Amino acid sequence: MSADEIKVTAASKKEKKANPKESSVDQATIQMLAKAQADNVETIFDRALTMKPCNIGEQGTCCKTCSQGPCRLPLPKKGIEGVDTRKGLCGATPETIAARNFARMVAAGAAAHSDHGRGVAEVFLAAARKETEDYGIQDVEKLLEVAVDFEVPTTVMVENEAGEKVEQERDIYKIAEEVGVKALGEWGKQEGEIYYAKRAPEARYELWKELDVVPRGIDREIVEIMHRTHMGVDQDYHNIVKQCSRAALGDGWAGSMIATDLQDIMFGTPYPIQGEINLGVLKADEVNIIVHGHEPLLSEMIVVASQDPEMLAYAKTKGAHGITLAGMCCTANEILVRHGLPIAGNYLQQELAIVTGAVDAMVVDVQCIMENIANVADCYHTKVITTNPRAMMESGHTVHIEFDEHHALEDAKRIVKEAIDNFPNRRAEPLIPNVKEKMVVGFSQEAIKYHLGGTFRGSYVPLNDNIINGRIRGIGGVVGCNNARTCHDSAHLTIVKELLKNDVIVLTTGCNAMACGKAGLLTPESAAVYCGPGLAEVCETVGIPPVLHMGSCVDNSRILMAATQVVKAGGLGKDISDLPAAGSAPEWMSEKAISIGHYFVASGVYTIFGVGLPVTGAPRLQKHLFEELEDIYGGMWDLEVDPYEHAKKMIAHIDKKRAALGLDKKKERVLMDMADRQKLDAA
Amino acid sequence: MSADEIKVTAASKKEKKANPKESSVDQATIQMLAKAQADNVETIFDRALTMKPCNIGEQGTCCKTCSQGPCRLPLPKKGIEGVDTRKGLCGATPETIAARNFARMVAAGAAAHSDHGRGVAEVFLAAARKETEDYGIQDVEKLLEVAVDFEVPTTVMVENEAGEKVEQERDIYKIAEEVGVKALGEWGKQEGEIYYAKRAPEARYELWKELDVVPRGIDREIVEIMHRTHMGVDQDYHNIVKQCSRAALGDGWAGSMIATDLQDIMFGTPYPIQGEINLGVLKADEVNIIVHGHEPLLSEMIVVASQDPEMLAYAKTKGAHGITLAGMCCTANEILVRHGLPIAGNYLQQELAIVTGAVDAMVVDVQCIMENIANVADCYHTKVITTNPRAMMESGHTVHIEFDEHHALEDAKRIVKEAIDNFPNRRAEPLIPNVKEKMVVGFSQEAIKYHLGGTFRGSYVPLNDNIINGRIRGIGGVVGCNNARTCHDSAHLTIVKELLKNDVIVLTTGCNAMACGKAGLLTPESAAVYCGPGLAEVCETVGIPPVLHMGSCVDNSRILMAATQVVKAGGLGKDISDLPAAGSAPEWMSEKAISIGHYFVASGVYTIFGVGLPVTGAPRLQKHLFEELEDIYGGMWDLEVDPYEHAKKMIAHIDKKRAALGLDKKKERVLMDMADRQKLDAA
Repeated sequence: MSADEIKVTAASKKEKKANPKESSVDQATIQMLAKAQADNVETIFDRALTMKPCNIGEQGTCCKTCSQGPCRLPLPKKGIEGVDTRKGLCGATPETIAARNFARMVAAGAAAHSDHGRGVAEVFLAAARKETEDYGIQDVEKLLEVAVDFEVPTTVMVENEAGEKVEQERDIYKIAEEVGVKALGEWGKQEGEIYYAKRAPEARYELWKELDVVPRGIDREIVEIMHRTHMGVDQDYHNIVKQCSRAALGDGWAGSMIATDLQDIMFGTPYPIQGEINLGVLKADEVNIIVHGHEPLLSEMIVVASQDPEMLAYAKTKGAHGITLAGMCCTANEILVRHGLPIAGNYLQQELAIVTGAVDAMVVDVQCIMENIANVADCYHTKVITTNPRAMMESGHTVHIEFDEHHALEDAKRIVKEAIDNFPNRRAEPLIPNVKEKMVVGFSQEAIKYHLGGTFRGSYVPLNDNIINGRIRGIGGVVGCNNARTCHDSAHLTIVKELLKNDVIVLTTGCNAMACGKAGLLTPESAAVYCGPGLAEVCETVGIPPVLHMGSCVDNSRILMAATQVVKAGGLGKDISDLPAAGSAPEWMSEKAISIGHYFVASGVYTIFGVGLPVTGAPRLQKHLFEELEDIYGGMWDLEVDPYEHAKKMIAHIDKKRAALGLDKKKERVLMDMADRQKLDAA
Repeated sequence: MSADEIKVTAASKKEKKANPKESSVDQATIQMLAKAQADNVETIFDRALTMKPCNIGEQGTCCKTCSQGPCRLPLPKKGIEGVDTRKGLCGATPETIAARNFARMVAAGAAAHSDHGRGVAEVFLAAARKETEDYGIQDVEKLLEVAVDFEVPTTVMVENEAGEKVEQERDIYKIAEEVGVKALGEWGKQEGEIYYAKRAPEARYELWKELDVVPRGIDREIVEIMHRTHMGVDQDYHNIVKQCSRAALGDGWAGSMIATDLQDIMFGTPYPIQGEINLGVLKADEVNIIVHGHEPLLSEMIVVASQDPEMLAYAKTKGAHGITLAGMCCTANEILVRHGLPIAGNYLQQELAIVTGAVDAMVVDVQCIMENIANVADCYHTKVITTNPRAMMESGHTVHIEFDEHHALEDAKRIVKEAIDNFPNRRAEPLIPNVKEKMVVGFSQEAIKYHLGGTFRGSYVPLNDNIINGRIRGIGGVVGCNNARTCHDSAHLTIVKELLKNDVIVLTTGCNAMACGKAGLLTPESAAVYCGPGLAEVCETVGIPPVLHMGSCVDNSRILMAATQVVKAGGLGKDISDLPAAGSAPEWMSEKAISIGHYFVASGVYTIFGVGLPVTGAPRLQKHLFEELEDIYGGMWDLEVDPYEHAKKMIAHIDKKRAALGLDKKKERVLMDMADRQKLDAA
């Protein structure tokens, strides 16, 4: 049968299977979910129906911090009458409990990003010291920029033959080594400030100093959260949230940002490039390898290995016509933005890629790997290959090939060979949905600068000008995961489209970027279809898509730097919090999203999440995060499940900032009004 | 009314108040709980009745690692039939979920201890650099010992006037500074090994290396747990538990051990001293200050301030006859073992101390501070004073006086003055239970060595001899918290008494030490009453109590060192895991206890907990912790709620180890010399 023949059946069966059409707005997903069900393979979509989330946990008021509990303090159905007297055994209020839980999410999220960054820094240092042949320095320009931030001299004064002192460029690898040492030092630093804090706009840096939230070191702030949230330590949610800011800023402006920078130096800073996305990128007659996870250290090598003539020849001996390497999750974004390699799909599609029956190996490293892929792989022929000592899988059906930077390419070849060897083991004719989209990706802040400023001189001034003149109403950062509790990609797309319609340019990373790619929003041509006239005009003039794909989750740090560049270009205030901008994670799922959200808030950004936030059972904490933080940081949290309302709130914030900048009067000149937009919407 | 007149009523009232006599075995606690109820003050004992713990959380199978959950996978009431197919949305098994939860407990516990240790290291360094006048070096001998472990030279070769090279002792403060720098460096270290790993018996150190669990640095291992337990990272509970070992060893053999050592150097290594314990130590006509929490940095200064003639004079102007400073929780143990200052009570008595109406200030720092003490304080006149920036309290009724080592004594005086000023505000005649006990405490490993070896030459050989000859059957380490889910102090005392009766000598710290003190078990005289004949004979001969109070929770590291000394004294095997010894936490409550438990297990100790362990919903993980770890580490976890069975299991393990050493036959035959021991050792 062909993909089009799969019968998509309704959900209301007794065995509680998910209705594919209600589970996703993505055609490839809908088709493969139906195939999974036809094959009697259970996926996360089905489990989301059969298991309800804990309603107390969802409110954030379940405390398992000590073995006197778990204590559960849900909001009474009628709401709180009079004084809120809810208490855990120790006396912890709902606010203390929810703040602790929130803080531990920040700690775990920051730890995940930062531990990724630590690994990058270690490999970078090995590369700088030439301890590995497989990695080197590709982007010298970026290295020299980063060296300045780490206060590493890039030149040295020497005496020439005439006895004159002249400035001489230092050896690139010497500079890199010093950068590597200082970068890695950011994890263990016990006092002082992280170097990159000063990258922020001056007003922001001064505010952080005044608030005493500049991170001293990456690990210390995470560990301090774990101490403060231990039983009987910090019992003032204001103070707990303050420590969240320190740790989250250590993620955004250090752990993640260092990861991005050093990856760029080693693998190249992304510039616009074309790519393809969705399960349709898999090829029935080729060896299909999916690299899934987060760290480009591994996937960069697999890219090389999969293009190796020897490997291609070996694949042919097994009857395959070639090797297709595709990415999934953030690993996908990493190899896409640097090499234009195809993406098979985003988070919720990982089981479904295997369901095609065409995936010969799924190679995973860390983060967002569903444990169930091993079970799904058991139903087909796919080999799941784990590669990181931090992330093993229990199932006897997975293979562990540990990846070590000192023989990286060799490891990568072993992995590719494993996939090729598995090609003849396919149990049935693969069924690959005929669904894929083209896209233009790779908009690092450097690329945006280049594109907007034109070939003569890169600059953010044209962007600022168009924000000031109202063609662009503002900037929306829409990022984050998928979540099986909501319809796959639906909120992502609705929100992004609403923003575009309202002339808000969108910066994206992670699974939202992939959702946009699959929906065709990452092409310059989409501007004419989805954008308000102002934004469409700008995009068409400059030749960029209205949604700019900036990379993976650690690359949210690129959004911080882009925002900083906008501030520095002038005319839109002195701080990130002055910008007509808003951040959003419509389908967030992982704790990393909370850390990202909080570093955006602490950097001055209005940040709104979908799905739910586990603070709703603690009204005073919620008020602190949603309202009071604005007075402290200029940025604050918000929550809105309905995607239209969600977008509306972002636009309202953008308008508020425009008004504060005195830009509200110019707005009236835009051609479309709300009635027009609603008409479009209904269409 | 006097304390004796308080009517202790039965529980079965409609308002669900705890029955005091069922809530504790401690008379002072029973009396004050009755007073609290008579005063209409709610305490943790009452809340433990009205709020039931979450039964799924208790099993360890509630996962809130991502916002697709919380997913809950309880064991079916009928048990598992056939294959266990329970899965979270992502496919996480009960084992993955419970292992993650367990690992995060280790992370939080290790973070708490280690962050305490970090603070000590910072103050130590400030003292070494003479940046503070209030702290100095008291125990030079210990400094020189520790310097060796940190590879800091204690002497230097210099040329004398005759031109000869001679060895000269280095300046103590110079040595201290280098020790301080290296000690503080242990937190941020990114690679290599913590220095103290080599303190362990050689066989143990080699095993750790072989297993690849030697911590690289304290913070890194904690942060790596937070990464690995993030959604979609480590999915093999064996591998998660392995990282628990790394992080927990970083607590026991670094974070906690450094805290203990540097505290000893600054404040003096404990040697046997007399003290008093229980609420009866408070004095109605004096200003009563309770220092509650964990860090001696603060309390050491309050000791000085409270004895200051100026302060005493000031107290008299307010009508008080003096100042009584008493401790609570581990702070109490710290000032007790070094100064003989009285202890007001252990964890579950913190609210009840305030209920006496006699506490003019309760000064808190970090860990195990019930949030409810602020509410109880509101019902009386007590001022709750927070002192640590990591641990604030929200209530408007608490005062924050931030403690800074650079003007420590000054801060301490402000705190004492605050208490004195509050003395005239007492609302009613205090009611102090006439209950207190004398005790002998302060058995550091150095003190045990001295005591057992006699005055001529300190040594653990006599202890080993008596274990070999069977007078002492083995060593029990009984430690840990109180837990409001169990009858206060009851399990602690039952287990310790059972061990004594069976000739097992007990090493104790924390709240168990206090329970023993209140029950009169910390006096040499108690040996005759509670011990089997062999142990009684040894204790009476040497003049020590059968239960040796070694200090606070971070001082569990002293037990590790005592065990190491026993191994090194010879005749009882080559590793800690060979010793006839067992560890226990009968009433554990905090995450620190899990970190402690796990570092004992990874150090080779059979470790049994009471109350419950949140792994029971994940049978394969439980089996791994309870059985499989024995093959890996020689130590393993166990759980037994019934205190008699609990003690029996400890004794059974001790007997198993005696048998393995061939000591089961030799019992009673005695008089071995070193040659005999070496033979045994070689066997």
